[in-house]
Amino acid sequence: MSAVAETQNEQLITRTDKDGVATVMLNRPKKFNALSMAVLDALLEEFTRIGDDKSVRCVVMAGEGKAFCAGHDLKEMRADTSRLAMQALFGKCSQVMQKITSIPQPVIARIHGIATAAGCQLVATCDLAVAVEEARFATSGINVGLFCSTPMVALTRNMPAKQAFEMLVTGDFIDAQTALQYGLINKVVTADKLDETVMEMALKIASKPAVSIAFGKQLFYKQIEAAKQVAYDMAGDTMTCNMLTEDAQAGVDAFIAKQPMPEWKGK
Amino acid sequence: MSAVAETQNEQLITRTDKDGVATVMLNRPKKFNALSMAVLDALLEEFTRIGDDKSVRCVVMAGEGKAFCAGHDLKEMRADTSRLAMQALFGKCSQVMQKITSIPQPVIARIHGIATAAGCQLVATCDLAVAVEEARFATSGINVGLFCSTPMVALTRNMPAKQAFEMLVTGDFIDAQTALQYGLINKVVTADKLDETVMEMALKIASKPAVSIAFGKQLFYKQIEAAKQVAYDMAGDTMTCNMLTEDAQAGVDAFIAKQPMPEWKGK
Amino acid sequence: MSAVAETQNEQLITRTDKDGVATVMLNRPKKFNALSMAVLDALLEEFTRIGDDKSVRCVVMAGEGKAFCAGHDLKEMRADTSRLAMQALFGKCSQVMQKITSIPQPVIARIHGIATAAGCQLVATCDLAVAVEEARFATSGINVGLFCSTPMVALTRNMPAKQAFEMLVTGDFIDAQTALQYGLINKVVTADKLDETVMEMALKIASKPAVSIAFGKQLFYKQIEAAKQVAYDMAGDTMTCNMLTEDAQAGVDAFIAKQPMPEWKGK
Repeated sequence: MSAVAETQNEQLITRTDKDGVATVMLNRPKKFNALSMAVLDALLEEFTRIGDDKSVRCVVMAGEGKAFCAGHDLKEMRADTSRLAMQALFGKCSQVMQKITSIPQPVIARIHGIATAAGCQLVATCDLAVAVEEARFATSGINVGLFCSTPMVALTRNMPAKQAFEMLVTGDFIDAQTALQYGLINKVVTADKLDETVMEMALKIASKPAVSIAFGKQLFYKQIEAAKQVAYDMAGDTMTCNMLTEDAQAGVDAFIAKQPMPEWKGK
Repeated sequence: MSAVAETQNEQLITRTDKDGVATVMLNRPKKFNALSMAVLDALLEEFTRIGDDKSVRCVVMAGEGKAFCAGHDLKEMRADTSRLAMQALFGKCSQVMQKITSIPQPVIARIHGIATAAGCQLVATCDLAVAVEEARFATSGINVGLFCSTPMVALTRNMPAKQAFEMLVTGDFIDAQTALQYGLINKVVTADKLDETVMEMALKIASKPAVSIAFGKQLFYKQIEAAKQVAYDMAGDTMTCNMLTEDAQAGVDAFIAKQPMPEWKGK
Repeated sequence: MSAVAETQNEQLITRTDKDGVATVMLNRPKKFNALSMAVLDALLEEFTRIGDDKSVRCVVMAGEGKAFCAGHDLKEMRADTSRLAMQALFGKCSQVMQKITSIPQPVIARIHGIATAAGCQLVATCDLAVAVEEARFATSGINVGLFCSTPMVALTRNMPAKQAFEMLVTGDFIDAQTALQYGLINKVVTADKLDETVMEMALKIASKPAVSIAFGKQLFYKQIEAAKQVAYDMAGDTMTCNMLTEDAQAGVDAFIAKQPMPEWKGK
């Protein structure tokens, strides 16, 4: 566990590690977990640390209090309205989002309340997402005149075009079942089953060989942007490297011998 | 309102403006609103005019008579079968489709009847689409030996691959509920609610600051084709420019102060 | 019918042609139709032959025995663990997949049982897919430590990102209804309706002019990777060439004259 967790009451974000699963919690409940520059800095630092931490096999992204995340901190944005300040803020936010998809461990969004604007982007960005029935999602920036341009990047890569366009220009909320149908999230559960469902998914992922998961996640976002032939070339290389690892060879041998899987070694 | 609307009975398309919403109506009901070269010219001209018209905040694309649009005018196509004539026709049609996504205002397809071939492409191309329960959709060109190649471009960017492939090679109709499930349209309503639903969506969009909607729509189609990092760079720039507008600053200030949104000024 | 069909009991794959539809059957039922190097060679050869065979208008990809296809032959993979052997295997497999989408005739996957790993990739790769209610799908390689990297390429181009990611990192099965909802397959039917449904789809496609289907299928995978403007340019050219064929002209003329479609000539 990193230093942040030790003094969590004073922290913008907290981190709790258990059984190979790191839970990163946004910790500004009174601000609906708004992503101020300091929060973004803390997230970037923490995800960078997690990416280097071999003990972490899966990450849960959660929020303290009533909301999952209400997006940027509008008050802070109005305190310095210079072009440079805006560019720095949106640039930092994009860096955090790109960091989430570039660390080797899968990241599961745990959505217990509303996720709006950059909060909805955070959901779209996480590799996986589980929400309660009451959760609601919106790219509501347009309602105050600030179109959710950066959230659009994540949305359009995780749901159909026309449905994303509608959310972006209307600012309307969608409920959890609709988000599931659009592919924005993976599962909808009742509130009392949220932690159980998220942890079950996280522990399942944590039980797989870390080296294989890392190969797969890295390739996922790289190949999706490539031409199909290039994607196949990259995937063939990745799969070859994966098959040459001790874990894959031991796993395949156990499967052939109808034995239980071995303790995974690869880190 | 432009000149076309004044003599609508003789016109291939009509335009009616109300409360910032321009309704462009295909007006060849006996021809199932077939997209002849003259209709395509009229659409290109009208959408170009609308794109420059600051009074228009949202556009509705509709059809007169029984059908929404049955695609190209096959009789006209057979009148001049030269390669040059074909290239000119398909080139013009693609220009119209690209114009619809490049004007600053969102365009909503209002589908009250069948949408086939290039008519189905028109639905896929519009930013948003609302259909009645009885509407049906097909890329039926293959039935007469002319594969819907240009409609395919719009279809595959607005619905899943296998479902688009099936429509293209079978020529079969899908109903409105299926189109909704595929993401080809945004809403299905009963016939008596069609105009109400379309106008509600159009007026909601018209009530947002035009400058922010324009920033968003322009970015939407540009970033969707870019690598994710490039998309984020573009989106950060767009959001910065958006935040520097008077409207966004006034909107964010009103939100912070828990006041109603201001009258938007940006055009 | 090609030579392979004549001695099918000894063959790794069989081929049966009827009414313009070639059924390619994986024929290692005791091995759950595992894709050994020899099977991949046979598939590549057979699909190449089919691609050149003007008598074939549609292809059905099926499996003998209990399973549709369980992916690679793990025993064979462990017999030669060299980097070169792995690269050759995954390279060959990708070649087979690319061949399926590059032949002029549509290929329908007929899924009567489980489809796992490269077997699930085969489903995703086929242009169309029909499955029984009991069929199940998984990219289960991660369970033995070998992430399904090459299947990922086909999956992410045929279903939503988050749902593909979940299948890849959990290795969990999804049922046929879920696969349908994700867009991974086109239809789910009861087991007694499988052959009827597949043949109905195949014969419908076989009844269209082969030249038009070939134009369309070739363009489908080419344009989907191109920028939209480039895609429209390619599609306009294809549609022009298509319209200049005897079949399209005769078909359009018949349609205008309200006559039945002619016998198609184009091959």
